[in-house]
Amino acid sequence: MNKNSPVIITLLTDFGLQDEYVGVMKGVILSVNRNARLVDLTHDVARHDIVQAALIIKNGFQYFPKGTVHVIVVDPGVGGKRRIVCVKKDGHFFVAPDNGVLSLVIQNQNVDEIRAVTNEKYFLKPVSHTFHGRDILAPAAAHLSKGVDMARLGKSIGPSDMVTLDIATPVVSLKQELIGNIISIDRFGNLTTNIDQETFDRFRQGHKLEDIVIRLGRFKIKGVSSSYDSVKVGSPVAVFGSRDLLELSVNQAHASTYFKAKAGQTVRLTRG
Amino acid sequence: MNKNSPVIITLLTDFGLQDEYVGVMKGVILSVNRNARLVDLTHDVARHDIVQAALIIKNGFQYFPKGTVHVIVVDPGVGGKRRIVCVKKDGHFFVAPDNGVLSLVIQNQNVDEIRAVTNEKYFLKPVSHTFHGRDILAPAAAHLSKGVDMARLGKSIGPSDMVTLDIATPVVSLKQELIGNIISIDRFGNLTTNIDQETFDRFRQGHKLEDIVIRLGRFKIKGVSSSYDSVKVGSPVAVFGSRDLLELSVNQAHASTYFKAKAGQTVRLTRG
Amino acid sequence: MNKNSPVIITLLTDFGLQDEYVGVMKGVILSVNRNARLVDLTHDVARHDIVQAALIIKNGFQYFPKGTVHVIVVDPGVGGKRRIVCVKKDGHFFVAPDNGVLSLVIQNQNVDEIRAVTNEKYFLKPVSHTFHGRDILAPAAAHLSKGVDMARLGKSIGPSDMVTLDIATPVVSLKQELIGNIISIDRFGNLTTNIDQETFDRFRQGHKLEDIVIRLGRFKIKGVSSSYDSVKVGSPVAVFGSRDLLELSVNQAHASTYFKAKAGQTVRLTRG
Repeated sequence: MNKNSPVIITLLTDFGLQDEYVGVMKGVILSVNRNARLVDLTHDVARHDIVQAALIIKNGFQYFPKGTVHVIVVDPGVGGKRRIVCVKKDGHFFVAPDNGVLSLVIQNQNVDEIRAVTNEKYFLKPVSHTFHGRDILAPAAAHLSKGVDMARLGKSIGPSDMVTLDIATPVVSLKQELIGNIISIDRFGNLTTNIDQETFDRFRQGHKLEDIVIRLGRFKIKGVSSSYDSVKVGSPVAVFGSRDLLELSVNQAHASTYFKAKAGQTVRLTRG
Repeated sequence: MNKNSPVIITLLTDFGLQDEYVGVMKGVILSVNRNARLVDLTHDVARHDIVQAALIIKNGFQYFPKGTVHVIVVDPGVGGKRRIVCVKKDGHFFVAPDNGVLSLVIQNQNVDEIRAVTNEKYFLKPVSHTFHGRDILAPAAAHLSKGVDMARLGKSIGPSDMVTLDIATPVVSLKQELIGNIISIDRFGNLTTNIDQETFDRFRQGHKLEDIVIRLGRFKIKGVSSSYDSVKVGSPVAVFGSRDLLELSVNQAHASTYFKAKAGQTVRLTRG
Repeated sequence: MNKNSPVIITLLTDFGLQDEYVGVMKGVILSVNRNARLVDLTHDVARHDIVQAALIIKNGFQYFPKGTVHVIVVDPGVGGKRRIVCVKKDGHFFVAPDNGVLSLVIQNQNVDEIRAVTNEKYFLKPVSHTFHGRDILAPAAAHLSKGVDMARLGKSIGPSDMVTLDIATPVVSLKQELIGNIISIDRFGNLTTNIDQETFDRFRQGHKLEDIVIRLGRFKIKGVSSSYDSVKVGSPVAVFGSRDLLELSVNQAHASTYFKAKAGQTVRLTRG
């Protein structure tokens, strides 16, 4: 990376935008590094929903250039004993509470370096007990973006020492079913499942895409299509969506309303 | 424009901010051009509401400096046969699906250049079938912002070949009425009509502003005022608002609640 | 400040993000100063809620570097007789309507300079009667950020000539109670009171933190804790929060739902 290029800092929180909290974190960052380039990943993660944040950062970070610093503040344990950590992976930096929100980033323990963030030199003083996003994570990220070596943040941690979440993975059952769950519902009502392309292909065993049957409650979709408009407007459709996960949608309509679906609900696939 | 000035890219979508979609588009743009300056026009266009997006981009673009690239992703036909286009007008660039969302920008066919966006060299690969905002529109806009000639994006298109929407225009009826519609309701409840200053002046024929009578359902407003506070707090008022369109408001209160009004409702003007 | 450093402009409005208004203000600013760095403080202040905006700017501005220009547009009197002013304090600039929104910034009249913003040279023409944020405040702030001397904006105003709000302050009653109010409820449901650390310490008179009793309606909290997780998940807790004000919360739950609390409600403290 060119030494003079501005470094990007992304922000992912459950703060919402109604209060000044996100703006204040940005003020703290720009006070340390006025050339940081700030991008909101989203601030509308459901309150304290670590799983959702884990999915979003895993999917989102890869679209940013190497060298980007990602700050994640979904932190129900703020002020308690949970650690704050900095993880380096594939040239990206992640600053987050060690509460499992980075579970999917450190999956397979395939990371370059992990540090506890304990060096108060990089904190905003005095450190409150209620807003570490402002007092620790934001300034630590800003210092990283200015080129501070992450080794200076605190002692090294092994990936196996990190808190990890037990995020559901799809299972292939004895009855020849592939069983997954709805893990996310977006603004369009699209239902994202935890069934990834690789698991799906292993299950499919060369059967045709149009022969796969997807069941959600009392609903049945025949076949996996390549785009929403493979079906008529208002009809249900299964596609591999932009997150590379199987998605249940309704062409130009709101799938979660159509299917009366909730996050966590079971999705069953058979080979027709 | 100074060669070294950062180029602005505006984003207008119906994605909302609860998912990571907007943030991911920004990551893609900054991966191509780290000096692009990103501005959100809004992401809260109602799902698939092309008309609303057409009104917003028409009103909004002119406040940005020449050279700005405007990305519009309200795209119910994503993955289908609709084209993606790049339009140049008055020194501004617009990258959008060819679904009518640029109808009001290309009105009167007064544009400099239109190109289909087909050159995969400027796409993010692999291109998904569900998120062209990320895979085509964002990177194409980023390349434009770096100085890529729009002629390289794809073949030329004539303005008459573009999809246009039939957006209601106000009509002067035989009964000496000017008849318009409510086309937008903002956060304050203000009702924007499609009655522009020029049509209004032609209708008014020199009659005094205070003699014009505006009817909305069973409500009647006498006169067009110059500002909200021309009337008492809580009273209805008609003004030419910030979009240069006739607006029905209630001073310091919520007009759409007061009038029980909906988008699309008819507004009738008589000369008193 | 380095002459070449980009200047930060923060925006605080009640516009919401559903319309293009905030984006348009940013376009106007960047048309004047393309190197301005824009940060949203929040745009979700309740419609016309000057008190809330006054609290937010007072708490928020200090986290930004000196030289930052803060634009506040919560302006129910737009187009009427209220003035627009520019205030300089501690190296920060504030551009806002003179309607009390800067009450807490100019508290104790401890400001460096106040100017009316009347010099049309720095306005966007023509100036509308309905959107001074776009036509006056945004361009004036942009010119300030480019180094225009604030003396050029208009004539000097004394701090005692500014409109100030009567924002409730906590009172110590004869019955040895400290009586405050809930002044803000954030996305997490946390209840911020107007009881600041200094008033609290004066009231406490050396009594132990755990002996202070806080009453809200029929609820009673014993003691002031140092962090949310000093109590069990789901239990109520009183802490001095990130705004340095006494906050009533529920560990990992939604306090305003738990307490059925509303802004304005009375909070009573006794020394146990």
